[in-house]
Amino acid sequence: MIPGDGIGPEISAAVMKIFEAAKAPITWEERNVTAIKGPGGRWMIPPDAKESMDRSKIGLKGPLKTPIAAGHPSMNLLLRKTFDLYANVRPCVSIEGYKTPYTDVDLVTIRENTEGEYSGIEHMIVDGVVQSIKLITENASRRIAEYAFEYARNNKRMSVTAVHKANIMRMSDGLFLRKCREVAENYKDIKFTEMYLDTVCLNMVQDPTQFDVLVMPNLYGDILSDLCAGLIGGLGVTPSGNIGANGVAIFESVHGTAPDIAGMDLANPTALLLSAVMMLRHMGLHDHADKIQTACFDTIRDKKVLTKDLGGSAKCSEFTAEICRRVQDLS
Amino acid sequence: MIPGDGIGPEISAAVMKIFEAAKAPITWEERNVTAIKGPGGRWMIPPDAKESMDRSKIGLKGPLKTPIAAGHPSMNLLLRKTFDLYANVRPCVSIEGYKTPYTDVDLVTIRENTEGEYSGIEHMIVDGVVQSIKLITENASRRIAEYAFEYARNNKRMSVTAVHKANIMRMSDGLFLRKCREVAENYKDIKFTEMYLDTVCLNMVQDPTQFDVLVMPNLYGDILSDLCAGLIGGLGVTPSGNIGANGVAIFESVHGTAPDIAGMDLANPTALLLSAVMMLRHMGLHDHADKIQTACFDTIRDKKVLTKDLGGSAKCSEFTAEICRRVQDLS
Ligand SMILES: CC(C)[C@H](C(=O)O)[C@@H](O)C(=O)O
Ligand SMILES: CC(C)[C@H](C(=O)O)[C@@H](O)C(=O)O
Repeated sequence: MIPGDGIGPEISAAVMKIFEAAKAPITWEERNVTAIKGPGGRWMIPPDAKESMDRSKIGLKGPLKTPIAAGHPSMNLLLRKTFDLYANVRPCVSIEGYKTPYTDVDLVTIRENTEGEYSGIEHMIVDGVVQSIKLITENASRRIAEYAFEYARNNKRMSVTAVHKANIMRMSDGLFLRKCREVAENYKDIKFTEMYLDTVCLNMVQDPTQFDVLVMPNLYGDILSDLCAGLIGGLGVTPSGNIGANGVAIFESVHGTAPDIAGMDLANPTALLLSAVMMLRHMGLHDHADKIQTACFDTIRDKKVLTKDLGGSAKCSEFTAEICRRVQDLS
Repeated sequence: MIPGDGIGPEISAAVMKIFEAAKAPITWEERNVTAIKGPGGRWMIPPDAKESMDRSKIGLKGPLKTPIAAGHPSMNLLLRKTFDLYANVRPCVSIEGYKTPYTDVDLVTIRENTEGEYSGIEHMIVDGVVQSIKLITENASRRIAEYAFEYARNNKRMSVTAVHKANIMRMSDGLFLRKCREVAENYKDIKFTEMYLDTVCLNMVQDPTQFDVLVMPNLYGDILSDLCAGLIGGLGVTPSGNIGANGVAIFESVHGTAPDIAGMDLANPTALLLSAVMMLRHMGLHDHADKIQTACFDTIRDKKVLTKDLGGSAKCSEFTAEICRRVQDLS
């Protein structure tokens, strides 16, 4: 458990309380992941956090504040890199009772999490001329495509859409797309389509129900996952999972640390809780996952005990207690 | 006038008819811009089209079909390059009577149109490893930032938002952002804000009315302009202008050629017509612009004579005639 900063500790405590009520068989090890300088001056996460993750393979993470010190790495990026968490998975499903202009959204964005525009390779060519390198490899493209199709099959989803700009970045996005096409050949049970990123954005806001699983390079996933979160209510209610090889995974809420309300018992733990539900499913604990998810969605649908951002006036602890009560009722 | 392919000739004819009804003082020279191979094998637009543009400085362009021949350049990109059309401007304004989940949208995306991810520079480093280069220059960044602020001032707009991912592409987007900040210093009457692209996408679908003028690098503009078009009804109703130095400009509809309905008198000329209205304003012909725009929006609000994509059953010629009638009534 990486509680994180700002409201992180409160919402982590809420999740642990709900897990206890659900008798989820999880032993938490709390760790701080703020980067330290290792041998040779390279940034790394603290050894005890690394060791805990290496042993348990599974993490749950609250929001981390953006480091302000120059040269300090983004902690999110460092975690993805340290554990080679190559797939970022964000299900976006309409929440009954939480009104947005869209209903029946039920899609999943699967984002390549290790390369692309996030390579970090940049140069100043001459004064006033800068280049950033977008790196696309055959291996990472095949790996994420395979992940997307496996995900679709295991989650009884009907189609996978590859999102790209291969009309512009013919070689890099072209390679990504080619790998998706090749992998699609091995999944004849899943419909495969390709669509330009701009077209996806346009179609998404016009009718998101046409989409199912979407797979894409890093930056496009950053954009589309936030866009899709917006359709169903924002980052306060959307879970996220970062998946690596051999079962390694970190689940996280992707909202900010909300320093303005930190420590005031006002935060909404839903995004972290739903991420924790994804974690339970990843571990095969589907009964516990179902119970907690039902209790959470029932609480929201019921509209009686809601945090402020969800339109209510309950404190974080009251919202949490209500979910605990419902979890126990379901047992 | 570059009528273009597919439905291009029909919708261009419609626009010319409406201009005639409005007595707009425009003499059209029709040109085909399909690229040819020039000396040294370089792709270029035909000399008579180039010569016409060089003389008149102003173009109106229908949709062009994507070239299928390998190595054939995107015509849109070639036009932008040939005439150094560095600013792509797309106003997105809610259309009364055309229902979408959003109302009161009134924003403008201003996209850097010449560099960034569209540099066309790509390499295969080793087998299976490809890089695309995103090129950001100080000059192009300053130029587009200045364009955005001038646009805001001239169009009585209150704020400019720079859209970026400088948290990831620190040098390239960092340079772009720095230039925006510098230029903002000279426009104290305009509010300046900065926002991450992912955050803009999320906020955009939650409440587009918070945005005014947005300025951004090439690819982000490609994405956001389509997203915003989706909010108000799609590419069939959104105009676009590509602006260069010294008054040179090409206005265009950004929808496709719709080959399935080409020649059947079913196309909707609205996007090209509104682009032509932008053109009139660019030329200082505001009275003619106002009249045509009013006639077009009145026709849509009235709902009696609409093309199929707008929810009606009128032919392109009937929709056009209705706008002509209203234009004449306004005279
Ligand atoms: C915090 C930031 C580095 C990150 C990203 O750009 O990937 C965030 O937007 C995300 O989506 O996880
Ligand atoms: C046709 C294509 C090259 C173009 C782009 O990607 O810029 C289009 O999407 C646009 O927005 O004009």
